[in-house]
Amino acid sequence: MIQEQTSTFCPVYRAIGVLQEKWVLHIVRSLLGSPKGFNELSRAIGGCNSATLTQRLEGLEGLGVISKATDQEAHGKLARSIYALTPAGRELQLVIDAISTWADVHLSEPFGDEQPCAS
Amino acid sequence: MIQEQTSTFCPVYRAIGVLQEKWVLHIVRSLLGSPKGFNELSRAIGGCNSATLTQRLEGLEGLGVISKATDQEAHGKLARSIYALTPAGRELQLVIDAISTWADVHLSEPFGDEQPCAS
Repeated sequence: MIQEQTSTFCPVYRAIGVLQEKWVLHIVRSLLGSPKGFNELSRAIGGCNSATLTQRLEGLEGLGVISKATDQEAHGKLARSIYALTPAGRELQLVIDAISTWADVHLSEPFGDEQPCAS
Repeated sequence: MIQEQTSTFCPVYRAIGVLQEKWVLHIVRSLLGSPKGFNELSRAIGGCNSATLTQRLEGLEGLGVISKATDQEAHGKLARSIYALTPAGRELQLVIDAISTWADVHLSEPFGDEQPCAS
Protein backbone atom coordinates (compact mmCIF):
# COMPACT_ATOMS: atom_id res chain seq x y z
CA MET A 1 0.00 0.00 0.00
CA ILE A 2 1.27 3.42 -0.88
CA GLN A 3 1.89 5.73 2.05
CA GLU A 4 0.71 9.17 1.08
CA GLN A 5 1.01 11.18 4.24
CA THR A 6 2.26 14.67 3.71
CA SER A 7 3.97 14.65 7.10
CA THR A 8 6.44 11.97 6.08
CA PHE A 9 9.03 12.16 3.38
CA CYS A 10 8.22 10.49 0.09
CA PRO A 11 10.24 11.29 -3.04
CA VAL A 12 7.32 10.70 -5.43
CA TYR A 13 4.95 12.84 -3.38
CA ARG A 14 7.52 15.62 -3.35
CA ALA A 15 8.21 15.32 -7.08
CA ILE A 16 4.50 15.57 -7.82
CA GLY A 17 4.42 18.63 -5.56
CA VAL A 18 7.10 20.24 -7.69
CA LEU A 19 5.74 19.22 -11.09
CA GLN A 20 2.14 20.17 -10.36
CA GLU A 21 3.10 23.79 -9.80
CA LYS A 22 1.58 25.70 -12.67
CA TRP A 23 4.04 26.28 -15.57
CA VAL A 24 6.77 23.99 -14.24
CA LEU A 25 6.15 21.23 -16.80
CA HIS A 26 5.85 23.83 -19.56
CA ILE A 27 9.17 25.36 -18.47
CA VAL A 28 10.88 21.97 -18.42
CA ARG A 29 9.46 21.02 -21.81
CA SER A 30 10.57 24.28 -23.35
CA LEU A 31 14.10 24.10 -21.91
CA LEU A 32 14.45 20.52 -23.13
CA GLY A 33 14.21 22.07 -26.58
CA SER A 34 16.98 24.60 -25.88
CA PRO A 35 18.28 26.98 -23.19
CA LYS A 36 16.48 30.31 -23.24
CA GLY A 37 16.53 33.84 -21.91
CA PHE A 38 13.75 34.96 -19.62
CA ASN A 39 11.66 36.72 -22.26
CA GLU A 40 12.12 33.98 -24.82
CA LEU A 41 11.07 31.39 -22.26
CA SER A 42 8.08 33.47 -21.24
CA ARG A 43 6.91 33.69 -24.85
CA ALA A 44 7.56 30.00 -25.48
CA ILE A 45 5.41 28.73 -22.63
CA GLY A 46 2.69 31.27 -23.31
CA GLY A 47 0.82 33.27 -20.73
CA CYS A 48 2.86 33.04 -17.53
CA ASN A 49 3.32 36.42 -15.87
CA SER A 50 6.84 37.60 -15.01
CA ALA A 51 6.48 37.37 -11.24
CA THR A 52 5.29 33.78 -11.39
CA LEU A 53 7.93 32.78 -13.92
CA THR A 54 10.65 34.33 -11.75
CA GLN A 55 9.33 32.41 -8.75
CA ARG A 56 9.21 29.13 -10.65
CA LEU A 57 12.73 29.57 -12.05
CA GLU A 58 14.13 30.34 -8.61
CA GLY A 59 12.37 27.31 -7.17
CA LEU A 60 13.67 25.01 -9.91
CA GLU A 61 17.16 26.45 -9.55
CA GLY A 62 17.01 25.75 -5.81
CA LEU A 63 16.08 22.15 -6.53
CA GLY A 64 18.96 21.75 -8.97
CA VAL A 65 16.68 21.28 -11.95
CA ILE A 66 17.75 24.37 -13.86
CA SER A 67 20.84 26.58 -13.89
CA LYS A 68 21.18 30.25 -14.72
CA ALA A 69 24.19 31.59 -16.62
CA THR A 70 25.11 34.95 -18.08
CA ASP A 71 25.06 35.06 -21.84
CA GLN A 72 28.69 35.69 -22.88
CA GLU A 73 27.54 36.72 -26.34
CA ALA A 74 25.97 39.83 -24.86
CA HIS A 75 29.34 41.63 -24.92
CA GLY A 76 28.83 45.38 -24.99
CA LYS A 77 25.15 45.06 -24.23
CA LEU A 78 23.36 44.53 -20.96
CA ALA A 79 24.20 40.93 -20.11
CA ARG A 80 21.21 38.64 -20.01
CA SER A 81 20.55 35.49 -18.06
CA ILE A 82 20.16 32.21 -19.87
CA TYR A 83 18.23 29.38 -18.27
CA ALA A 84 19.11 25.76 -19.00
CA LEU A 85 18.29 22.38 -17.54
CA THR A 86 20.92 20.74 -15.37
CA PRO A 87 21.71 17.03 -15.96
CA ALA A 88 19.02 16.27 -13.32
CA GLY A 89 16.56 18.50 -15.15
CA ARG A 90 17.28 16.88 -18.50
CA GLU A 91 16.32 13.54 -16.99
CA LEU A 92 12.78 14.89 -16.82
CA GLN A 93 12.73 14.16 -20.56
CA LEU A 94 11.29 10.76 -19.59
CA VAL A 95 8.36 12.46 -17.83
CA ILE A 96 7.68 14.76 -20.78
CA ASP A 97 7.97 11.82 -23.19
CA ALA A 98 5.46 9.83 -21.13
CA ILE A 99 3.04 12.77 -21.11
CA SER A 100 3.54 13.21 -24.85
CA THR A 101 2.85 9.55 -25.57
CA TRP A 102 -0.32 9.66 -23.49
CA ALA A 103 -1.46 12.94 -25.02
CA ASP A 104 -0.99 11.73 -28.59
CA VAL A 105 -3.31 8.82 -27.90
CA HIS A 106 -5.89 10.41 -25.63
CA LEU A 107 -5.96 14.16 -26.26
CA SER A 108 -5.40 14.31 -30.00
CA GLU A 109 -8.80 15.64 -31.01
CA PRO A 110 -8.96 19.46 -31.26
CA PHE A 111 -11.79 21.15 -29.38
CA GLY A 112 -14.02 23.56 -31.33
CA ASP A 113 -12.11 25.68 -33.85
CA GLU A 114 -8.62 24.94 -32.52
CA GLN A 115 -5.94 24.48 -35.14
CA PRO A 116 -3.40 21.67 -34.90
CA CYS A 117 0.07 22.82 -33.91
CA ALA A 118 3.10 22.07 -36.06
CA SER A 119 5.00 19.98 -33.49
CA MET B 1 11.10 23.62 -33.25
CA ILE B 2 8.26 23.05 -30.86
CA GLN B 3 5.23 25.24 -31.44
CA GLU B 4 3.96 26.31 -28.06
CA GLN B 5 1.24 28.81 -28.84
CA THR B 6 -1.78 28.49 -26.61
CA SER B 7 -4.05 29.58 -29.45
CA THR B 8 -3.37 26.46 -31.48
CA PHE B 9 -4.13 22.92 -30.52
CA CYS B 10 -1.26 20.81 -29.24
CA PRO B 11 -1.96 17.55 -27.40
CA VAL B 12 1.14 17.80 -25.20
CA TYR B 13 0.42 21.39 -24.22
CA ARG B 14 -3.12 20.40 -23.30
CA ALA B 15 -1.99 17.34 -21.36
CA ILE B 16 0.43 19.46 -19.34
CA GLY B 17 -2.43 21.87 -18.72
CA VAL B 18 -4.45 19.02 -17.23
CA LEU B 19 -1.65 17.41 -15.24
CA GLN B 20 -0.32 20.64 -13.75
CA GLU B 21 -3.63 21.35 -12.03
CA LYS B 22 -2.94 20.98 -8.36
CA TRP B 23 -3.83 17.50 -6.98
CA VAL B 24 -4.44 15.88 -10.37
CA LEU B 25 -1.22 13.83 -10.35
CA HIS B 26 -1.83 12.90 -6.72
CA ILE B 27 -5.36 11.76 -7.61
CA VAL B 28 -4.11 9.69 -10.54
CA ARG B 29 -1.35 8.13 -8.46
CA SER B 30 -3.73 7.22 -5.69
CA LEU B 31 -6.35 5.71 -8.01
CA LEU B 32 -3.65 3.67 -9.76
CA GLY B 33 -3.33 1.94 -6.39
CA SER B 34 -7.05 1.19 -6.17
CA PRO B 35 -10.48 2.76 -6.80
CA LYS B 36 -11.62 4.85 -3.84
CA GLY B 37 -14.57 6.68 -2.36
CA PHE B 38 -14.43 10.45 -2.07
CA ASN B 39 -13.38 10.60 1.57
CA GLU B 40 -10.85 7.81 1.22
CA LEU B 41 -9.33 9.54 -1.79
CA SER B 42 -9.25 12.86 0.03
CA ARG B 43 -7.35 11.30 2.93
CA ALA B 44 -5.00 9.40 0.63
CA ILE B 45 -3.82 12.46 -1.29
CA GLY B 46 -3.59 14.57 1.85
CA GLY B 47 -4.75 18.13 2.21
CA CYS B 48 -7.03 18.83 -0.74
CA ASN B 49 -10.24 20.56 0.28
CA SER B 50 -13.59 19.02 -0.74
CA ALA B 51 -14.57 21.74 -3.21
CA THR B 52 -11.28 21.48 -5.09
CA LEU B 53 -11.35 17.69 -5.08
CA THR B 54 -14.90 17.71 -6.44
CA GLN B 55 -13.85 20.11 -9.18
CA ARG B 56 -10.82 18.01 -10.12
CA LEU B 57 -12.82 14.77 -10.19
CA GLU B 58 -15.48 16.34 -12.41
CA GLY B 59 -12.81 17.68 -14.75
CA LEU B 60 -11.06 14.33 -15.00
CA GLU B 61 -14.36 12.56 -15.52
CA GLY B 62 -15.15 14.99 -18.35
CA LEU B 63 -11.82 14.16 -19.97
CA GLY B 64 -12.48 10.43 -19.72
CA VAL B 65 -9.65 9.87 -17.28
CA ILE B 66 -11.74 8.67 -14.35
CA SER B 67 -15.19 7.15 -13.97
CA LYS B 68 -17.63 7.36 -11.10
CA ALA B 69 -19.76 4.39 -10.07
CA THR B 70 -22.13 3.69 -7.23
CA ASP B 71 -20.83 1.21 -4.69
CA GLN B 72 -23.15 -1.82 -4.93
CA GLU B 73 -21.89 -3.08 -1.59
CA ALA B 74 -23.58 -0.16 0.12
CA HIS B 75 -26.94 -2.00 0.11
CA GLY B 76 -29.15 -0.71 2.87
CA LYS B 77 -26.89 2.24 3.52
CA LEU B 78 -26.56 5.53 1.72
CA ALA B 79 -24.93 4.56 -1.56
CA ARG B 80 -21.51 6.07 -2.06
CA SER B 81 -19.64 6.97 -5.20
CA ILE B 82 -16.47 5.13 -6.10
CA TYR B 83 -13.88 6.75 -8.33
CA ALA B 84 -11.69 4.67 -10.60
CA LEU B 85 -9.37 5.29 -13.52
CA THR B 86 -10.69 4.49 -16.97
CA PRO B 87 -8.42 2.55 -19.37
CA ALA B 88 -7.17 5.96 -20.62
CA GLY B 89 -6.49 7.03 -17.05
CA ARG B 90 -4.62 3.84 -16.24
CA GLU B 91 -2.26 4.62 -19.09
CA LEU B 92 -1.01 7.54 -17.01
CA GLN B 93 0.87 4.85 -15.07
CA LEU B 94 3.76 5.57 -17.46
CA VAL B 95 3.78 9.22 -16.39
CA ILE B 96 3.71 8.35 -12.69
CA ASP B 97 6.43 5.72 -13.21
CA ALA B 98 8.63 8.30 -14.96
CA ILE B 99 8.11 10.78 -12.12
CA SER B 100 8.84 8.03 -9.59
CA THR B 101 12.06 7.02 -11.34
CA TRP B 102 13.22 10.63 -11.45
CA ALA B 103 12.24 11.28 -7.85
CA ASP B 104 14.07 8.23 -6.53
CA VAL B 105 17.29 9.51 -8.08
CA HIS B 106 16.99 13.24 -7.54
CA LEU B 107 14.68 13.88 -4.59
CA SER B 108 15.60 11.03 -2.30
CA GLU B 109 17.17 13.08 0.50
CA PRO B 110 14.72 14.05 3.28
CA PHE B 111 14.63 17.72 4.24
CA GLY B 112 15.08 18.62 7.93
CA ASP B 113 13.35 16.17 10.26
CA GLU B 114 11.18 14.46 7.65
CA GLN B 115 10.76 10.72 8.05
CA PRO B 116 11.04 8.37 5.08
CA CYS B 117 7.69 6.93 3.95
CA ALA B 118 7.11 3.21 3.68
CA SER B 119 6.43 3.08 -0.07
